[in-house]
Amino acid sequence: MNKFYQKDIISIKDFDKEQLEEIFSFTDKIMRMDSTERREISKGKTLAYLFYEPSTRTRLSFDSAIASIGGNSLGISDISSSSTQKGESLADTVKIMSIYSDVLVLRHPLDGSSRFAAEVSSKPVINAGSGTEEHPTQAIQDLFTIKKEKKMIDGLKIGIVGDLKYGRTVYSLLHGLGNYDVDVHLISPESLRIRTDSTYEIKKRLSFSESTDIEEHIDELDVLYVTRIQKERFPDEEEYLKVKGSYIVGMDLLKKMKDDAIVLHPLPRLDEISTDIDSTKNAKYFDQAEYGKYTRAALLGLTLNQDGF
Amino acid sequence: MNKFYQKDIISIKDFDKEQLEEIFSFTDKIMRMDSTERREISKGKTLAYLFYEPSTRTRLSFDSAIASIGGNSLGISDISSSSTQKGESLADTVKIMSIYSDVLVLRHPLDGSSRFAAEVSSKPVINAGSGTEEHPTQAIQDLFTIKKEKKMIDGLKIGIVGDLKYGRTVYSLLHGLGNYDVDVHLISPESLRIRTDSTYEIKKRLSFSESTDIEEHIDELDVLYVTRIQKERFPDEEEYLKVKGSYIVGMDLLKKMKDDAIVLHPLPRLDEISTDIDSTKNAKYFDQAEYGKYTRAALLGLTLNQDGF
Amino acid sequence: MNKFYQKDIISIKDFDKEQLEEIFSFTDKIMRMDSTERREISKGKTLAYLFYEPSTRTRLSFDSAIASIGGNSLGISDISSSSTQKGESLADTVKIMSIYSDVLVLRHPLDGSSRFAAEVSSKPVINAGSGTEEHPTQAIQDLFTIKKEKKMIDGLKIGIVGDLKYGRTVYSLLHGLGNYDVDVHLISPESLRIRTDSTYEIKKRLSFSESTDIEEHIDELDVLYVTRIQKERFPDEEEYLKVKGSYIVGMDLLKKMKDDAIVLHPLPRLDEISTDIDSTKNAKYFDQAEYGKYTRAALLGLTLNQDGF
Repeated sequence: MNKFYQKDIISIKDFDKEQLEEIFSFTDKIMRMDSTERREISKGKTLAYLFYEPSTRTRLSFDSAIASIGGNSLGISDISSSSTQKGESLADTVKIMSIYSDVLVLRHPLDGSSRFAAEVSSKPVINAGSGTEEHPTQAIQDLFTIKKEKKMIDGLKIGIVGDLKYGRTVYSLLHGLGNYDVDVHLISPESLRIRTDSTYEIKKRLSFSESTDIEEHIDELDVLYVTRIQKERFPDEEEYLKVKGSYIVGMDLLKKMKDDAIVLHPLPRLDEISTDIDSTKNAKYFDQAEYGKYTRAALLGLTLNQDGF
Repeated sequence: MNKFYQKDIISIKDFDKEQLEEIFSFTDKIMRMDSTERREISKGKTLAYLFYEPSTRTRLSFDSAIASIGGNSLGISDISSSSTQKGESLADTVKIMSIYSDVLVLRHPLDGSSRFAAEVSSKPVINAGSGTEEHPTQAIQDLFTIKKEKKMIDGLKIGIVGDLKYGRTVYSLLHGLGNYDVDVHLISPESLRIRTDSTYEIKKRLSFSESTDIEEHIDELDVLYVTRIQKERFPDEEEYLKVKGSYIVGMDLLKKMKDDAIVLHPLPRLDEISTDIDSTKNAKYFDQAEYGKYTRAALLGLTLNQDGF
Repeated sequence: MNKFYQKDIISIKDFDKEQLEEIFSFTDKIMRMDSTERREISKGKTLAYLFYEPSTRTRLSFDSAIASIGGNSLGISDISSSSTQKGESLADTVKIMSIYSDVLVLRHPLDGSSRFAAEVSSKPVINAGSGTEEHPTQAIQDLFTIKKEKKMIDGLKIGIVGDLKYGRTVYSLLHGLGNYDVDVHLISPESLRIRTDSTYEIKKRLSFSESTDIEEHIDELDVLYVTRIQKERFPDEEEYLKVKGSYIVGMDLLKKMKDDAIVLHPLPRLDEISTDIDSTKNAKYFDQAEYGKYTRAALLGLTLNQDGF
């Protein structure tokens, strides 16, 4: 029996290096299959999505993942605009959705929501983003992208730039990187530095440096992971505009980077990365989106099949 | 040829006991099948849903039902927020939707809407709730649940509590129970008593007693069917709060009930049933939701297959 | 290899008569197939829809088309109410959606949007309506309907009535008719006449007369194509009501038409065609909707299969 069968996917912290590498290996396997073979993996299985905050991108990534392995999806894409918004409890909604499906994909603004949902659900629950720090399938997608494009993760120097305070993507990625021997460099405006309380655990497994200057170690990076800086995070617009300009990845910056460095982004991108980067060999954010589809397909396939695939 | 083939499902009043029992028997058959076998029943058939009032729960029950028998679904989940809301008539919309599908599932606020839709549709129409009194698939789900859990329906004493005036679920259930030899006890606040004009027909086939006190016959009931009491129905909030409190099913009440009594609810539940009931052997409302998926799958399978399945 | 394989469908102007006839012939083929055979055509393929303006009708026509040939669909039905509305560029959204699917269906208010999307997409793009003049799949549906119902298109006299200024359907249909030897008669209020600048190209291939009087050539028409006149187009309501009344197709008008003339409408219809026409042998607008499903299925099948089907 494969060890992921009927297991919940709640936090990236629940995965050790061996498990991650096993998922990567199944993702590789799925990518090598032809589409007919792939559709046999979870033929006729139903995924139910339950989104307490809208995320079209993440939902469609799961929709396309389950379709690629032969299943189908149904659910609620934005519960705030749904009739389910009649005051029903999360527990009741999860119980019903798990009756309607073989696997449940939950997105929720509150920390702990996925863990709780997994307790009450009769089917495995996959966390598609919860609270401030958890987005395990995004972290797996990101780690797979690095592995795939750089052949290995150990030994790399990885820069992460942008809003490091509010993005759950960054925290999940850092926890995932904690399984590897990497050198992490965090770049953000002072007001958007990573939260000290949240890195207590991360620091036990991962050393990182911090800087407000994107150019400081730019020539040493193997990976530059870019995230959005959102206007809403700033008390006044002037401050925002000043800060934003300093973290845009353009051709000038790219020229200072290693020839084989890669640029990643969880998307959607606004203007953090200028579009002339898109056509360079360093731009890997669209590949990253494609890998996201296949890592999710692998996770779903492992969760739904006793003996793997 | 099976007698439900290409037939509309408009009103629970159109079903006699023999027909209901046949549907129950096909539901049992579907539940015994493995998922691969089940998906052959309506492989590749398309269900179109057309909801003139939103009901995420009912829509998803149909979505999961058609998926479980190998079909797919498409449609309009809330026509008020749809571009179809350009003033097109119900007749035109129904005609088009029936071109796009093999079976049409309609929800509409007006009495008679389903009957009318069935007239103009080129495909069978299933009423997923219309007007004040009709919700035939919910009634079939409820009757099947009682049969499944109590082994028979004849001879039971059934209490129905809550808002009996406005819920279409209750009227449909009473009409369905009219086919059986049951003893019905209705419990509601004075202002939410069942409508006299609507029970004229029911009374010919079914005798029931009425009470405002939930405890009155509580120790005699085999089934307690609980419905929501909605705040909006009351002229002032104080009145609502007073009434609401009197109809909450908690452990104290459950202890007064027969040991093998079952508690049902069409869901979603707010606080009409306290959550500590959930883990008792009497709580059958989540099973009821699951049976709803399979009774709908059976109805769809019978409607779509000439020789049944 | 079939000539439509992996090709974008951007403008009706890109299709010559031979290509149109080939599509019609594949549409005929699809209509003759039984549903099991049909579902093999694009088994397991995924269509992604990306609608920058809502159009439930067009979306459902594509949904049902891809379902009928064994595929599935996912996407964004109204991007303005979607989280993708975070300011992401059309190019980025198209790139991602093409990763998630085998073919992309785009609807967008701007001229040129589909052509641009096709440039950046890694999968074929089908224009489901863009800007003021392009709606190629609607034109193909309309031409196929005429061919199917009148056996040929050459030699026909075709009247087009209603709002000829703002409807993109009309411009696409005229460009499509430019491939045939037809006599076109345009009927509209003065203020909703066809745009002179837009017909410059059309006039090179097609001669048409114009009139404000629907009765002028009514007895000569083989086809009457009716479009909606929208209230919003008029400066004052009185003007609108006066004009609207003059272009309603009722039994009186139908009696003046040829016995075998056909009446078409892209739908949805408001009261441009009175409902007593529906049951006459001349009313072909619901058949037109059905042909729309099958022409789209044929286009999708050709785009997705190297050797056709």
